[in-house]
Amino acid sequence: MGEVSGERVAEGADAFDVFARDCPSRFTLGHVTGRWGSLTLGALRDDTLRFNELRRRVDGVSEKMLSQTLHALERDGLVVRDARPTNPPHVEYRLTELGADTADRLLALIGLVEDRMPEVLAAQRAYDAARGTG
Amino acid sequence: MGEVSGERVAEGADAFDVFARDCPSRFTLGHVTGRWGSLTLGALRDDTLRFNELRRRVDGVSEKMLSQTLHALERDGLVVRDARPTNPPHVEYRLTELGADTADRLLALIGLVEDRMPEVLAAQRAYDAARGTG
Repeated sequence: MGEVSGERVAEGADAFDVFARDCPSRFTLGHVTGRWGSLTLGALRDDTLRFNELRRRVDGVSEKMLSQTLHALERDGLVVRDARPTNPPHVEYRLTELGADTADRLLALIGLVEDRMPEVLAAQRAYDAARGTG
Repeated sequence: MGEVSGERVAEGADAFDVFARDCPSRFTLGHVTGRWGSLTLGALRDDTLRFNELRRRVDGVSEKMLSQTLHALERDGLVVRDARPTNPPHVEYRLTELGADTADRLLALIGLVEDRMPEVLAAQRAYDAARGTG
């Protein structure tokens, strides 16, 4: 916990702490758990996909947002952009080993949320009913 | 996958799919993984905390954002707001069982990101160097 400087955090993993305001891990966590980042990592877990295949899988994402998301994940070393020098060029996206490890943890969380949605919906109904907004 | 209607998804957990645009699980995942939601759940994993204690732990959150975050997590059945009828009133926040299960998965993901930040920073340096932006 506490303050971390750019110099100090580069020295060892122990120094990284997402609860600290300026820790770089907070930004990477944001890319991983962001609305489109999480779905993109999840979609690439089992497949190498082309841009338009990804766009269909991540229902609702715009071309611009998917492009920004992929750039951030590529920069973090989670996704590789594979461009084969064919004509026309064939571009595919796949996870790195780090990306796959991250996606595994993320999918465990996503699976839990999906499995427990009946509980969540019941809680929402009770909350709204208690406040007369349901 | 595919379309899910509000009626159908209420019937069984199998019907929930965060990849589907309108599935309610996508909103709950957003609350859980959002910038402040994730840190709030993580902070409450081991402690019952008062509002101002939470605010100190989730470094950088504003009063308004923490309040909104807690309302969303409470409505989803992840957090309980405990108000004891003392004078002055004593209000504490704690996780439900569902909230604790969710926080466990989330902390596993956060732990991985923190542990692997040296790899992430190396990837960022390589990415920036290749593009002359480093």
